[in-house]
Amino acid sequence: MKLTDAALAGDRRALARLLSWVENGAPEGREALATLFPRTGHAHVVGITGSPGAGKSTLVGKLAKEIRQHEPRLAIVAVDPSSPFSGGALLGDRLRMQDLVADSGIFIRSMASRGHPGGIAHATRDVVLLLDALGFPVILVETVGAGQAQVEVARIAHTVVLVEAPGMGDEVQALKAGLMEIADIIVVNKADRPEARQTVRALQAAYLGMTAAGHHTPSTEQPLEVIPGWETPILQTAAVDNQGLTELVAAITAHRHYLEISGRWELLSRLHARAEVETWLQRHLMLLLEERVGEQRLAAAVEAVLRREKDPATAAQELLEPLLSR
Amino acid sequence: MKLTDAALAGDRRALARLLSWVENGAPEGREALATLFPRTGHAHVVGITGSPGAGKSTLVGKLAKEIRQHEPRLAIVAVDPSSPFSGGALLGDRLRMQDLVADSGIFIRSMASRGHPGGIAHATRDVVLLLDALGFPVILVETVGAGQAQVEVARIAHTVVLVEAPGMGDEVQALKAGLMEIADIIVVNKADRPEARQTVRALQAAYLGMTAAGHHTPSTEQPLEVIPGWETPILQTAAVDNQGLTELVAAITAHRHYLEISGRWELLSRLHARAEVETWLQRHLMLLLEERVGEQRLAAAVEAVLRREKDPATAAQELLEPLLSR
Repeated sequence: MKLTDAALAGDRRALARLLSWVENGAPEGREALATLFPRTGHAHVVGITGSPGAGKSTLVGKLAKEIRQHEPRLAIVAVDPSSPFSGGALLGDRLRMQDLVADSGIFIRSMASRGHPGGIAHATRDVVLLLDALGFPVILVETVGAGQAQVEVARIAHTVVLVEAPGMGDEVQALKAGLMEIADIIVVNKADRPEARQTVRALQAAYLGMTAAGHHTPSTEQPLEVIPGWETPILQTAAVDNQGLTELVAAITAHRHYLEISGRWELLSRLHARAEVETWLQRHLMLLLEERVGEQRLAAAVEAVLRREKDPATAAQELLEPLLSR
Repeated sequence: MKLTDAALAGDRRALARLLSWVENGAPEGREALATLFPRTGHAHVVGITGSPGAGKSTLVGKLAKEIRQHEPRLAIVAVDPSSPFSGGALLGDRLRMQDLVADSGIFIRSMASRGHPGGIAHATRDVVLLLDALGFPVILVETVGAGQAQVEVARIAHTVVLVEAPGMGDEVQALKAGLMEIADIIVVNKADRPEARQTVRALQAAYLGMTAAGHHTPSTEQPLEVIPGWETPILQTAAVDNQGLTELVAAITAHRHYLEISGRWELLSRLHARAEVETWLQRHLMLLLEERVGEQRLAAAVEAVLRREKDPATAAQELLEPLLSR
């Protein structure tokens, strides 16, 4: 396939085209992923998540510049927020990243939540896989918005950075307990604000309370004998003023080393591979349903349920019968 | 089946047992649902959602008492919060509802997020279906916690009540835009607090902004000619002092009338039935995978992916081949 060769040689237009195919679930995308798959497994995938207003996009931009001082290339995948009901993606943040475009070593891809037949999580995974195959040593995946998207990032990233703004209320913190559990590094951005210290303390307290209560970050879930578990650092940055970025990059690098030395890199790779296969099982089955059950038979089954002639479980079972062997 | 007869006759222990079967996805539960399914379709399912700290449990308790003045029976299904990673459900709120237990016309069921093979959303739907079949005219479904659970409630409820506390920050409101879109009634609880008026105004502004921007509540999504669309009321309650409850019950009743007169009750029933059938399609397929692919073959496929011998899509396809006809 010529396009994959061009993309491998560094042709950005070929890369953009491949990515579109992969994002949209086009057959060419599947084919490219299958061809390139043996090349994957080398990128360090860093998920960056947190609530809107924490200054994530600015931080990602600055972080990318900082990482570029050590790496020849870097990719950013920005997953845009949108509520499950309103279609509008807020792309404003993307503009802040535009000055990065001047750096040809940085590739940026924004993905809206809509328009992915298999769901945004699946599309994101495929895009990351392609960028990995094409030799990007570091891939930053920025996710915003609903809780689910943020949890999803833990399923593709090796390192999860949770970004907070100073002055979030206690209530919000409580809601975030689930997020803190998936964080490998916690960053309080906008640390020039007076409330920053207090937020750091609140996060430390919440984090200690969480670990004391027997919860562990994924990093310490599997007891490892030689290497002690990772202790999630709580860092402060002021991305606009370039403060704290060196420390953040150091923490990200340290986490990668920790993963490799502790054997957790391999473990994560196995978990990710399993998640991929399971997702594809579901995906294939859903496509099969679309093709071989179809809208008309589904609608007829729904009407039978509405007339109370069949319960939903039985109606679904009957739809499946012709698909299955034996 | 004797147990279903006993439950239909009002035996609470039989009901509790049936519910456990249904919750756990036991075959007896499936059978009971299939038997009782023709009796479903009459309950008014009212979803009550909102962030922790809004006083939801107290409100639900008082609301139940108020509704009981007009209805012979009522059921409460309380879905307890828990992060996707920590197993602990916060059941403290449940205690506040205990004085309701004295009323034999009120049936309360608490469900933890864990321990449901098909997921909490699926288990909740089945529990509601069973309660509907057993003749409860009103079912209150209280959900707390993560965004996804709150969105799910819109898929089973006819009427969604969003409960807020006074003094939520703007940022939090923004996060809630998705929730406001699914709300049929918005309640500012703890309305005795001085910030309540301001919160009502902020919600009104947010709501107007949302509808002006072309978003609509599900109630007005389908243009209906004769009956004008539902305008989501923003009410104030102080549940602890029994204030505003009559108005809330009136709004819930008005919404039910609106649904019936506008034809949206039927439309919602159709949407819910379709969601049920689709969920069961997925569920059956997942069970089939467990039974007929099994852990050993799945693990072998994952190892092949890790050795980069197969990409995940191909590995999944090969696992499925033997299951499918033709």
